[in-house]
Amino acid sequence: MSELRRHPFLNQWVITATHRQDRTFHPPKDYCPLCPTQPGGFPTEIPESDYDIAVFENKFPSLSPNAGAPDIEGTELMPVRPAEGVCEVVCYTSKHDGTFAELPYQQVRKLTRVWQERYIELSSRPEVEYVFIFENKGDVIGVTLAHPHGQIYAYPFIPPTAETQLAAEKAHYQKTGRTLHEDWLADEKTDGRRIVWENHSFVVVVPFFARYPYETHVVPKQPVGSLAEMSIGMLDDLAEALLFTTRTLDKVFDFSMPYIMAMRQRPCVPGCEASVFRVEFYPPYRTANKLKYLAGSEAAMDAFINDTLPEDKAAELRSIQIDPIR
Amino acid sequence: MSELRRHPFLNQWVITATHRQDRTFHPPKDYCPLCPTQPGGFPTEIPESDYDIAVFENKFPSLSPNAGAPDIEGTELMPVRPAEGVCEVVCYTSKHDGTFAELPYQQVRKLTRVWQERYIELSSRPEVEYVFIFENKGDVIGVTLAHPHGQIYAYPFIPPTAETQLAAEKAHYQKTGRTLHEDWLADEKTDGRRIVWENHSFVVVVPFFARYPYETHVVPKQPVGSLAEMSIGMLDDLAEALLFTTRTLDKVFDFSMPYIMAMRQRPCVPGCEASVFRVEFYPPYRTANKLKYLAGSEAAMDAFINDTLPEDKAAELRSIQIDPIR
Repeated sequence: MSELRRHPFLNQWVITATHRQDRTFHPPKDYCPLCPTQPGGFPTEIPESDYDIAVFENKFPSLSPNAGAPDIEGTELMPVRPAEGVCEVVCYTSKHDGTFAELPYQQVRKLTRVWQERYIELSSRPEVEYVFIFENKGDVIGVTLAHPHGQIYAYPFIPPTAETQLAAEKAHYQKTGRTLHEDWLADEKTDGRRIVWENHSFVVVVPFFARYPYETHVVPKQPVGSLAEMSIGMLDDLAEALLFTTRTLDKVFDFSMPYIMAMRQRPCVPGCEASVFRVEFYPPYRTANKLKYLAGSEAAMDAFINDTLPEDKAAELRSIQIDPIR
Repeated sequence: MSELRRHPFLNQWVITATHRQDRTFHPPKDYCPLCPTQPGGFPTEIPESDYDIAVFENKFPSLSPNAGAPDIEGTELMPVRPAEGVCEVVCYTSKHDGTFAELPYQQVRKLTRVWQERYIELSSRPEVEYVFIFENKGDVIGVTLAHPHGQIYAYPFIPPTAETQLAAEKAHYQKTGRTLHEDWLADEKTDGRRIVWENHSFVVVVPFFARYPYETHVVPKQPVGSLAEMSIGMLDDLAEALLFTTRTLDKVFDFSMPYIMAMRQRPCVPGCEASVFRVEFYPPYRTANKLKYLAGSEAAMDAFINDTLPEDKAAELRSIQIDPIR
């Protein structure tokens, strides 16, 4: 029971997925569906006694390759569509109490290859317009399964925020012949105060326009649209940059930092050459014991208030020392 | 220390307001800044021993009439502006443990007049482009002061969500000569399943495109742009409809329901005739003990997943009996 309903005031698709209401909710550790299946134990999502990286379709998907015709009829103003697409779960460690930040570098290298493969595969599906690789981490973000995992949503539309960004990227490209990404990054480099770290291919930056106190972006030095265009060396550099970012965030308050990790990639429709890859981290804390909530101004108006200065937060992140990653 | 920074990828203003980081955070009840000042007691925001309705500027404002020049220089891509505007607090009861839903009808009638007066006053300020009357209710929404209160943000820009909606409203009006509101409401009435309640001037509806399980809209039967256009009778009807909605929501799970209440009104710039008044409630619960979180798909992509059917939730709200309001 899943469908797309058109929101005529916001011009966007809302996914209605009633079967998700009963999805697994904070199961006891012994019944974790993302752990390997123990011999004689209850069958988890992964029918193996151990695994390295496992990708499978979400058992409670918002979008599905087998989406049937909607049960409800739409109107001219408010059409409905089947909720086609794919929702995948990416288990990158069999360790129930692990975190992404604690993964060995070699494991994240492998994971970048898996992501690349999934992006290429999913973006080739005719119904898919946008492949969104992301991770929700932490109870305060709303995670219902403690076992660390990422997700992939292959949407049959370009989601609203990606569409807004795409419009800005296209307009800039048409006006200047350059990507918005490279001109923005040039500004960040000229100023320098918000740059946290860099390696050969990526820069870690708290952007000038950060909407969350510890919002941190991992951005390529040379504009590329997606994982599909990345060389092996660049994927390795991405693995290192993501580990740098998550391990640094874990040291900010000396607890494992919750976050939304959002990988922005080129939409899978023609005409999106101006769109550039970027990974954004939104940690929800503004101090060690205060959360940044999305309340009236943010949730209803999308007008964000950042209670901190990106320059200060970047300096704070720069001052944190972590062990060498590779 | 407050400024507006341009987000070049999302084409929106981000408010940076560092003084808010130290705002009052869950003070003990004896030190509530929104209670009346007791004789000999600590001075609250309201220097009276009792009050009926009190409106005053937020002590930790995101936007201020005295916003100075920004401390930071912008760039061509990422300009900065003073964070001009007004943030007001609306205390509608001196009772620390009260809620909006528990207010007498006569008190909410008065409150609608106060809102109307504030909308007219704030929208006449030259720097103000949008007046947003809202209430964040409940700890889970992120409220930092338990004393019930509403807020008003008078933004010096049209906030992103209002701008998206305005574009849809204008396009529909140009195409049809009718407001999007009336055509949408006609569809809702024809279907009927999502209509919860109505009085002379307003309809309470869980819209076809609801993004939250208990998302409930209070909408005028005849399109009006703002509180400023409402007659006394219509304001009374609004008071009743808001009490109906909040009292009904309180009975869903038999606890005082948290919510974001967002009053959408006509922007205060020319050319917005197509824009129609509406009050939206976003309660964050999807069951009595499960919250709807804004995680990856919502917070990073604005792609909402509703785990329930608006038709079912409207039926649930219709089945709730509350005492007569007036």
